[in-house]
Amino acid sequence: MPDSAVDPVDTVTEVPVAVVGAGPAGLMLAHRLGRAGVDAVAIDLRGREEIATTHRAGILEADAARDLVETGVSDRILREGHEHGGTELRFGGRAHRIDFRELVGASVWLYPQTEVFTDLADARERDGAAVHFGVRGTEVLDVDTDRPRVRFTAADGTRHELRARYVVGADGSRSTCRGLVPEPLRVRYGTEYPFAWFGVLVRAPASAPELVYAHSEHGFALISQRTESVQRMYFQCDPDERTADWSDERIWATLQARVAGRDGFRLVEGPVLERSVLRFRSFVQEPMRWGSLLLAGDAAHTVPPTGARGLNLALHDVKVLAGVLLRALGAEGEPALADYQPLALRRVWRAQHFSSWMTRLLHTAPGAAPFELRRQLGELDSVVGTRAGRAYLAEQYTGWPTSA
Amino acid sequence: MPDSAVDPVDTVTEVPVAVVGAGPAGLMLAHRLGRAGVDAVAIDLRGREEIATTHRAGILEADAARDLVETGVSDRILREGHEHGGTELRFGGRAHRIDFRELVGASVWLYPQTEVFTDLADARERDGAAVHFGVRGTEVLDVDTDRPRVRFTAADGTRHELRARYVVGADGSRSTCRGLVPEPLRVRYGTEYPFAWFGVLVRAPASAPELVYAHSEHGFALISQRTESVQRMYFQCDPDERTADWSDERIWATLQARVAGRDGFRLVEGPVLERSVLRFRSFVQEPMRWGSLLLAGDAAHTVPPTGARGLNLALHDVKVLAGVLLRALGAEGEPALADYQPLALRRVWRAQHFSSWMTRLLHTAPGAAPFELRRQLGELDSVVGTRAGRAYLAEQYTGWPTSA
Repeated sequence: MPDSAVDPVDTVTEVPVAVVGAGPAGLMLAHRLGRAGVDAVAIDLRGREEIATTHRAGILEADAARDLVETGVSDRILREGHEHGGTELRFGGRAHRIDFRELVGASVWLYPQTEVFTDLADARERDGAAVHFGVRGTEVLDVDTDRPRVRFTAADGTRHELRARYVVGADGSRSTCRGLVPEPLRVRYGTEYPFAWFGVLVRAPASAPELVYAHSEHGFALISQRTESVQRMYFQCDPDERTADWSDERIWATLQARVAGRDGFRLVEGPVLERSVLRFRSFVQEPMRWGSLLLAGDAAHTVPPTGARGLNLALHDVKVLAGVLLRALGAEGEPALADYQPLALRRVWRAQHFSSWMTRLLHTAPGAAPFELRRQLGELDSVVGTRAGRAYLAEQYTGWPTSA
Repeated sequence: MPDSAVDPVDTVTEVPVAVVGAGPAGLMLAHRLGRAGVDAVAIDLRGREEIATTHRAGILEADAARDLVETGVSDRILREGHEHGGTELRFGGRAHRIDFRELVGASVWLYPQTEVFTDLADARERDGAAVHFGVRGTEVLDVDTDRPRVRFTAADGTRHELRARYVVGADGSRSTCRGLVPEPLRVRYGTEYPFAWFGVLVRAPASAPELVYAHSEHGFALISQRTESVQRMYFQCDPDERTADWSDERIWATLQARVAGRDGFRLVEGPVLERSVLRFRSFVQEPMRWGSLLLAGDAAHTVPPTGARGLNLALHDVKVLAGVLLRALGAEGEPALADYQPLALRRVWRAQHFSSWMTRLLHTAPGAAPFELRRQLGELDSVVGTRAGRAYLAEQYTGWPTSA
């Protein structure tokens, strides 16, 4: 028995579900359980302000957008989000629109992850639920029993212990919870990419009405939007690139070169407000459940950002998991948990494929043979050149019908 | 001026088009020109019997099958070929049919390349056209002028010179003609694969009504058919594999393991009649035209055999090329040749992508990370799991609408 098990705490709380991680996945799970009458306490190492200002994904599937409204989180997305009926692929100096609505009858919503988080944090507060931000000294104990515990020091310095029936690890891509699955039982799948994204937030009007995914011989770029006066853009860079080496002028010249074309398309320029290098990888840990511990979202799997699957996949996980946990806490008991991984994992591997595909389709690998660039153009032509190709991309981009 | 230019020859023939290579591409081009009243003489290093007994591709696009009939080559394909309305992908131990007819309103024909060749050689003979098989000492001269020549020693020992307006290099994947494009002007694109195909011809009834493309953790296998009593099968192997190391028993055990599944599918076994290791690569040389020389089929580009694009692509090249040559030899003159590469190349790069994609989707790369195997299964699930995915594959497998 670890020392911590006998350490005194200031507060002991009995709660059906303890959630480690209060990002969108953790909070949405707690919200879904709360709406069904089951209490869940969420904790996070990060402060609320820190989470609310860390720029991440910006595209929600229509299902996820609808869920925010229908589960009572907020309808702010309908007023402040922007529905996108398609996206644009640029290659060979030309624009090719993928019309999601016409092809697969679906759309996506531009609504940044920071807004999703804010809505969820506000909803939890409004519902009087306990969320502890800025905790430290977190220990997750006894997940191999049916009485797991989570101990932590709250931001006010008080020491807490949550005595739960289940613990959910929704603690993101640097998850410590996933390390609780014993080494002999867990399998980790992954691959690295020889490039990263240089992300900027700029003060300028939008250059395009929808996202623009640009392939060029110089590398990939993604043009997205935030508000009328602030935009989010990315370009492929070396993973070791330093933001200090990039002036506004150099950033704009790089972005302009990647979207340039015979149609004369130009980005509207403005001051760069923020710049950062975003590394990424493909990663899956199985199993997603061990004992009383369940992993959800980035804690179990991360994808490259190309194709905007990460947040949507996390929200799908917790939709499935909420249903399974409610059954497990009800008449059905623990056997219900066996359904979680199969229901979640099929979409996880489809999304792993899609994210990896979109990444390899659009990025230029350093040192790649000239064949590879021409093959990419042949593939892009196959994708945009026929309805089947466009529909295949649209279906994956907008998400598959939910499995739970 | 090379010595050969003043060597005496026994026969000089003036002919509009000289075709180096009398495989399906070369003969189909000569046939198409001949039907339009333009003579073409074709030559080949190989003997007619050798070409007719070298097993190659077995699947023709519906357009290519129709062309054989409609251009008057032969209607034997309609009697002895087999129309396939779909194909099967096997993975995860299960069969998934791709229904070409239902998805894209197209089908393909099982009709071996050796039969296509035989039909074409018979048609040329029937039309009284000159085809020289088993030639040696071939020299292609003066392609940088408008009076190119082809000199060769025929099988009977006589020395010939063809004085042509255009020379077509249809001399296959080991083309010497493509080397005539001066080095500073040509670009070669290509990639190698870390595996090959072990191909067998077996005496046994068919195990399946259509082709079966099998993905397994042990590697790829392809089950195809030839006749009621002879079948053609392949399995992924090391490029350095030696056929002498493979007994019938070992071959069947390997094939059975690669198609095994929970549905109990088994191949019908029988004696192995032929075995060979087939290496492949992806390759394109540009330009496809230089001076009076035009390259067609494997001489300009080769693809891995997965997805059966090679022969179909070669037949598409010569369909385009015949039209362009007829215009160039008519009122329009040489400027018409400028249309050849753009019309042919778009399909070339689409097919390069498709062949490379099918290869990477279904084969197991030696030393690949476990992530890659799971990602492949996620991709296969994305492809077969929705109509858009199945249609995307079907459209590429059955060929795109012809561009000429």
